[in-house]
Amino acid sequence: MALFEATRTLHFSDCDPAGIAYYPRYFDKLNSVVEDWWASMGVPWKTLFLQRRIGLPTVRFEVDFRAPAFLGDTLVFSLAVARIGRKSVDLDHCVRRDGAVLWHAKQVLVPTSLETHKSIPWPDDLRAALTSFQESPHAHHPAA
Amino acid sequence: MALFEATRTLHFSDCDPAGIAYYPRYFDKLNSVVEDWWASMGVPWKTLFLQRRIGLPTVRFEVDFRAPAFLGDTLVFSLAVARIGRKSVDLDHCVRRDGAVLWHAKQVLVPTSLETHKSIPWPDDLRAALTSFQESPHAHHPAA
Amino acid sequence: MALFEATRTLHFSDCDPAGIAYYPRYFDKLNSVVEDWWASMGVPWKTLFLQRRIGLPTVRFEVDFRAPAFLGDTLVFSLAVARIGRKSVDLDHCVRRDGAVLWHAKQVLVPTSLETHKSIPWPDDLRAALTSFQESPHAHHPAA
Amino acid sequence: MALFEATRTLHFSDCDPAGIAYYPRYFDKLNSVVEDWWASMGVPWKTLFLQRRIGLPTVRFEVDFRAPAFLGDTLVFSLAVARIGRKSVDLDHCVRRDGAVLWHAKQVLVPTSLETHKSIPWPDDLRAALTSFQESPHAHHPAA
Repeated sequence: MALFEATRTLHFSDCDPAGIAYYPRYFDKLNSVVEDWWASMGVPWKTLFLQRRIGLPTVRFEVDFRAPAFLGDTLVFSLAVARIGRKSVDLDHCVRRDGAVLWHAKQVLVPTSLETHKSIPWPDDLRAALTSFQESPHAHHPAA
Repeated sequence: MALFEATRTLHFSDCDPAGIAYYPRYFDKLNSVVEDWWASMGVPWKTLFLQRRIGLPTVRFEVDFRAPAFLGDTLVFSLAVARIGRKSVDLDHCVRRDGAVLWHAKQVLVPTSLETHKSIPWPDDLRAALTSFQESPHAHHPAA
Repeated sequence: MALFEATRTLHFSDCDPAGIAYYPRYFDKLNSVVEDWWASMGVPWKTLFLQRRIGLPTVRFEVDFRAPAFLGDTLVFSLAVARIGRKSVDLDHCVRRDGAVLWHAKQVLVPTSLETHKSIPWPDDLRAALTSFQESPHAHHPAA
Repeated sequence: MALFEATRTLHFSDCDPAGIAYYPRYFDKLNSVVEDWWASMGVPWKTLFLQRRIGLPTVRFEVDFRAPAFLGDTLVFSLAVARIGRKSVDLDHCVRRDGAVLWHAKQVLVPTSLETHKSIPWPDDLRAALTSFQESPHAHHPAA
């Protein structure tokens, strides 16, 4: 299965007064991983959102947290495409520290028009990018 | 069913280059609503986290987004207790704008020791606060 | 001197692993106060940014922190207009807790075109709003 | 002059509805650069804050913004030590895109006890780390 992997360090600002990762900051990092994944497929969000006026809002999000992460930890995010729909894509996320799973997430994204905020079918090039990613045999890593 | 309700305005910093609410900021607001709810039950997090060294991490989170929210929108968050476990509490969240539902979330919180980061049974006073809230007949609103 | 005042509570997510307010979150709150101040003058940012395509970037920012703030503290932000330029406005900010000053800031904002990102002279209605605020005799408070 | 340099990409979440970098997010990144700089000198904040209970709050911050940055931009942060005081350190920050300066900042940090939140003289090892950095002849880059 094709995977996109990216590394993120837990900085001071990602942690809360309890000394562990604050979960909204996790999702902020997750979102940046999704953004880097699209860029790695040749679809930078600057062009997508600001020029083509296509949005990619999350319509469903499901997360299981198994273990906390701490200040200074290095996290490895892995992203897989579970299913490509006509007007959606299902992503599976897994976040590990030193090989151990910290949390899993399932996320459903839909392409929308940023004029109407209604969902639209995938434009051909975006569908082709997703399909090509899903069918590629090996893990993909972002350019360093 | 007892409800805790709180109002949050979508400020500039809550919105993204697509002009709509950025979902990690939604969860940041949701977390502040949960915090205000505990305070309304007589359990300020300053005491809970920093003095009693009890944490309340989220172990499961499930969200369905139905419609986007925009810069300047006023959102009403409603929180209900779905189930009180021995070492957990299940919350149902609903977020509305002008009465229309924008998104729903289910969240499971567990009490933990901030020394070991292991789950602990609810201390008696916290369980009593949750039970009393759940059994109260009317909606609760935070002090203005 | 005319003052705009607004109250903000320090939530869990505003505080860092040291247990005190994290300064980028202070600036996030400050920005929301500036946004509410413009709205109180009849200039909601939704219209200004998204319809009129006028931006208000900060070009200078100067802050002195005197004392830390803690989880659960209630902060009162006060904003005054120090000087209205042809293409800028100088603001003085003061943040207090229980009457004691926690920090001061000076901020210079400039109106820009969001097409070119170049500064522009104040449109007449914005200049009139600023002048009217500056000349009003009493403190202004946001609608509750 | 010794410089610490670090690269940060402007992600979607760093940008605002005006399509440019949101300044509180700049400071969040700046803070992470300062954190990485201390780690590069052998002083990880996890140990400093959570074990030694020493804080490093900002007491003064002064920023000049010259040009906006946009979604997807790669920023290079450079940090220099301007002055080491008995109970403070003055930092000069410069942020560039493609070699052109976007903004400058001066920041004063003070070591504090996280028990009393009062300033303390630099512990010997921290002062030695700062002095050694300041006197080193070449630019320092973080480990990749």
